[in-house]
Amino acid sequence: MQATADLQIIPMGDGVSVRKEIRQIVDLIERQGFITHRHASGTNIEGELHELLATVEKIHSLLHEQGTIRVLSNIKLETRTDKLPTLAGKVL
Amino acid sequence: MQATADLQIIPMGDGVSVRKEIRQIVDLIERQGFITHRHASGTNIEGELHELLATVEKIHSLLHEQGTIRVLSNIKLETRTDKLPTLAGKVL
Amino acid sequence: MQATADLQIIPMGDGVSVRKEIRQIVDLIERQGFITHRHASGTNIEGELHELLATVEKIHSLLHEQGTIRVLSNIKLETRTDKLPTLAGKVL
Amino acid sequence: MQATADLQIIPMGDGVSVRKEIRQIVDLIERQGFITHRHASGTNIEGELHELLATVEKIHSLLHEQGTIRVLSNIKLETRTDKLPTLAGKVL
Repeated sequence: MQATADLQIIPMGDGVSVRKEIRQIVDLIERQGFITHRHASGTNIEGELHELLATVEKIHSLLHEQGTIRVLSNIKLETRTDKLPTLAGKVL
Repeated sequence: MQATADLQIIPMGDGVSVRKEIRQIVDLIERQGFITHRHASGTNIEGELHELLATVEKIHSLLHEQGTIRVLSNIKLETRTDKLPTLAGKVL
Repeated sequence: MQATADLQIIPMGDGVSVRKEIRQIVDLIERQGFITHRHASGTNIEGELHELLATVEKIHSLLHEQGTIRVLSNIKLETRTDKLPTLAGKVL
Repeated sequence: MQATADLQIIPMGDGVSVRKEIRQIVDLIERQGFITHRHASGTNIEGELHELLATVEKIHSLLHEQGTIRVLSNIKLETRTDKLPTLAGKVL
């Protein structure tokens, strides 16, 4: 099932600036081969729902392996049956 | 990896009232054996991250099978390495 | 215009545990006289939309005054014209 | 207090496609003079927190005036005291 998603990750306990962590997350997402669009509050992603959710798990694991103690994520998902959900289709 | 989650599902195209759909989603979540707490804007869930995410997929599939054309979900996840994340541990 | 809301506040830069900050936020919300329900990922609030939003501003200001450098908030709002939106009306 | 925000509006009861409503919301936001960036799941906004929140109220009112029965909004806010929060500053 194809989905569009918006993903925001919040590392807690690493201090005020988490730019290094966000860069690693963006790299990980982009290596998965999804269609993506980065914005100021997260990343839009288009792909197979199962792979999107597996990527969320990978991100939590990666950050914990690198020492982040607490990881919050905010995920918005959308699926639909009347047409293929795409990022391009959501542009006004 | 154990996680706590907050899950809100928004069926689109079924009209203003989606109480029937929400009831089915809550039933599905509760059948998975998670520790849960329902509130006015969603459901808090404690469980294995992998199973939590699999449940999100099941919910999208269930609603589409029953005719909902468009399904949005808002998922908040939290994992941590300093202690086991539980719903009970998040009560003030 | 009456609304129901779900409010989650994330203080950044105060370390892994932000229980003290969350307690102050909950106190501030409850002093406003709203109908509220606390849960593991935030607080459901019922009240006048204008006052709800003013409370969000007060929370950001309070945390900054007390030294929190970065404050994130996630707010879900709902208004409707077919009936008065209430927390009680959203219970299944 | 300057803030950055991410705003998503979900009109309920208007059917599966809400493109017309979203276009009106985007027009309303852009008329307020904020710095904005539209993406597939919402709009990033930079501006005075008070004006951002007033705009959220205007959006709920506008949609209800035009007949939308139920309006959900998801708002992410960020404020910080160590530097001016800007959309440009959040680009990697």
